[in-house]
Amino acid sequence: MGPNALEQHIVLVGFMGAGKTTVGREVARRLDRTFFDLDEVIEQQLGSSIPELFAEYGEDGFRALETQILMEELLLRNRYWSVIAAGGGIVETSFARKALADLAFNVLLEVDVDTAWERAHDSDRPLARDETEFRRRYERRVPLYDEVADARARDAGDVALAAAGVHVETGVLERLGELVPGGPVALVSEPVVAGIYGADAQLALGDRLAEVHELPTGERAKSVQEVERLWRSLRIQRSDVLLALGGGSLTDAAGFAAATFGRGCPWVPVPTSLVGQVDAAIGGKTAIYIPEGKNLVGAFHWPARTVIDPALIETLPAHERLNGMSEVVKTGLLMGEPVWTLPDPELVRRCAAFKSAVCLRDPHDEGPRRVLNLGHTFAHALEAAAGYDLSHGHAVALGLLAALRLSGRDTDPVDELLHPKPVAVDRERAWQALQRDKKGRMRIVLLGDDGGRVTELPEADVRAALDSLIAR
Amino acid sequence: MGPNALEQHIVLVGFMGAGKTTVGREVARRLDRTFFDLDEVIEQQLGSSIPELFAEYGEDGFRALETQILMEELLLRNRYWSVIAAGGGIVETSFARKALADLAFNVLLEVDVDTAWERAHDSDRPLARDETEFRRRYERRVPLYDEVADARARDAGDVALAAAGVHVETGVLERLGELVPGGPVALVSEPVVAGIYGADAQLALGDRLAEVHELPTGERAKSVQEVERLWRSLRIQRSDVLLALGGGSLTDAAGFAAATFGRGCPWVPVPTSLVGQVDAAIGGKTAIYIPEGKNLVGAFHWPARTVIDPALIETLPAHERLNGMSEVVKTGLLMGEPVWTLPDPELVRRCAAFKSAVCLRDPHDEGPRRVLNLGHTFAHALEAAAGYDLSHGHAVALGLLAALRLSGRDTDPVDELLHPKPVAVDRERAWQALQRDKKGRMRIVLLGDDGGRVTELPEADVRAALDSLIAR
Repeated sequence: MGPNALEQHIVLVGFMGAGKTTVGREVARRLDRTFFDLDEVIEQQLGSSIPELFAEYGEDGFRALETQILMEELLLRNRYWSVIAAGGGIVETSFARKALADLAFNVLLEVDVDTAWERAHDSDRPLARDETEFRRRYERRVPLYDEVADARARDAGDVALAAAGVHVETGVLERLGELVPGGPVALVSEPVVAGIYGADAQLALGDRLAEVHELPTGERAKSVQEVERLWRSLRIQRSDVLLALGGGSLTDAAGFAAATFGRGCPWVPVPTSLVGQVDAAIGGKTAIYIPEGKNLVGAFHWPARTVIDPALIETLPAHERLNGMSEVVKTGLLMGEPVWTLPDPELVRRCAAFKSAVCLRDPHDEGPRRVLNLGHTFAHALEAAAGYDLSHGHAVALGLLAALRLSGRDTDPVDELLHPKPVAVDRERAWQALQRDKKGRMRIVLLGDDGGRVTELPEADVRAALDSLIAR
Repeated sequence: MGPNALEQHIVLVGFMGAGKTTVGREVARRLDRTFFDLDEVIEQQLGSSIPELFAEYGEDGFRALETQILMEELLLRNRYWSVIAAGGGIVETSFARKALADLAFNVLLEVDVDTAWERAHDSDRPLARDETEFRRRYERRVPLYDEVADARARDAGDVALAAAGVHVETGVLERLGELVPGGPVALVSEPVVAGIYGADAQLALGDRLAEVHELPTGERAKSVQEVERLWRSLRIQRSDVLLALGGGSLTDAAGFAAATFGRGCPWVPVPTSLVGQVDAAIGGKTAIYIPEGKNLVGAFHWPARTVIDPALIETLPAHERLNGMSEVVKTGLLMGEPVWTLPDPELVRRCAAFKSAVCLRDPHDEGPRRVLNLGHTFAHALEAAAGYDLSHGHAVALGLLAALRLSGRDTDPVDELLHPKPVAVDRERAWQALQRDKKGRMRIVLLGDDGGRVTELPEADVRAALDSLIAR
């Protein structure tokens, strides 16, 4: 139930052979949750194998046992949200479907019947002996899975996206109306994006489009004055939806307006930049600008849904794309996979899935999210020293160089993809900005074998790494 | 555990004879939660009475059973937060104390040993037969209750206050430092209040006082420009505390700053007006002002604690007090009790307890809170028609008159306590403002036998009631 799994169990449903156990384990690892395979729990509790239980109680008897143990799993783990791989047949019991609908976020792991038979038929599964019966059962269950599924997935990345309420699909802008939950919609965009995609978005929203608003292009959208202007022009109700179509600054500002208008109304970011699609629009952070600190004022306000259409970044100017590639490289380094070699739709899906998983682990930025700051300590210091006259992408690329050097890692991916040049800023000013940011403790995100980890470093090493980014 | 019971079970602990069952039932009624008496649950599950179970298993055996059933109650009711009256001896088992500390918000219902003996000794309680042993047991348990208690209470009102994190105590300003959880504190006040209580508050905070800020007196505190100025002057960290010392406008504005600074930092309102103490500072609503609507922009941000010192309202000017009395009368009408006859400390405690309970039932204003709007539909219309040149208290007093008339109730309490005079405003303008507020549906809060209830009324009746408040 509900639009995301922030405060719910995630239950994987799907036909035998879909890979629920493998994917469930991987999802649990990424989200740092406990994993339960319902079949294993049943075998442990009853001291018999599934085939033995089938033989002893029959299919109906087994379903009754299974439903009861599912209920216990769902109810017992009060606020300890877990990932549960359910048995393929759990949906055959109407009471189990009701329990799933009421008490869990259910993701259907999809598998076609041929693959399922291929994987299942030489196992000891009691229901995978007769192929005709197997195929008949598959057909019978299709509508039952549909009935409980809050989302569909093919792999662990898809599950993380679904759990975060993030939908990634090329061309999906056309179907925006279907994907935005709720009633009337106030569309908030900015002139450049509105000129390219505004009409398509309006068309896709149809009758639900109630209002159209604009913020200025770029960081000016985040000024207090502009957000005040937006607050004053909104006419929607608190239960209506604010849809933010644009880059990272636009979704930050419009998301903040949504967090505060009517003391919080549902919102849907539709990011149109690479930075937005792989990073800024995911995870519920919103912010406006005050001179004392870039994201000092803001709110956590998880979107009702995040709609990502990788087709939208095709029109991106080269420098905007390069900006986003710095975050892609950062994400790939943290994942330990060269995602930057993938075509856009897959690159976006993988990066968005990684960010979704990290943010689900830590919705209010109390710990695990800090790894996303890889390279950013240095980037912020350089930006401050340059009086913010330095692109964020360039600053992050340099910051990644420093983080990789301090981690004893090869800097090739950064050099080859982002080829950042040292910047001419005042060394002392950059160092002071970094110290202010860190408040005396040099806790820097480095890259380890399992991804990012926060490490306390000697001041001299950090200063040397910072200096190496500054032109002589 | 934690500062409040918004998302926790409430467990009442305390010695036999403290009245845990009676008070627990009343708390559950006020908070619209399910109530469980642990002794009753045990008797039902095991099919024997408590004395029989004591006789059969001995005290140790009974404690083991009791702890197990407590654990089930705490764990099973996933997100269905209940009120549980625990047995007096539950704290004797260290594992039960651990479970309580980890899984519930525990309120110690206090009783002195003489009263306890008076109430318990001629019941069938197995542990209330020998007075010496009874008194020894009482002494032994005192530190055990202290170990688990998140708060102390004497009645259902106290429990509601504690559950909402609200502390009401005359003279408590002196002990502010003890009551504000967390680390460094930024004190936000306004010139008039700072002149009277600022020094005492600063003294009470001692070393923890990190910063002092001022907003303008009155509604000007809520302007976007003033809140921006406050954002820009704050230097505290996201984990530090913002303390708001002042009236309703001050706590609204400073609370909004706390909700948005660092994407949300803990805050403690210390209301200094009668309106603030009985209403505005309780329930987590914060707001700033835009001309399009008084509380259109804001955030829900439940305080880490609310500290109410009824001594602070002694210095209130008469018109400010009258303002607050309108809310007191509204609260008394909703409670069905003439709380306005009570001395200040008790009047404040009772009204704050009522508001706490209603807000705990509905932290995000999705239904039950609407009863608090008794009279306010009319008040808002009159205020708008007067161009906001009408005191809120006067407007609410008139609104209460209309609500009572439409409810077929006696208007004496309003007439005698608030003696509101009709106002000279444009009838058409007032009616249009009311219609805008209601969006065409005349859903008005009326007074029934069990308190407020939202009722749809014919337009003509509502218009006539509004007209009766306007001077010819």
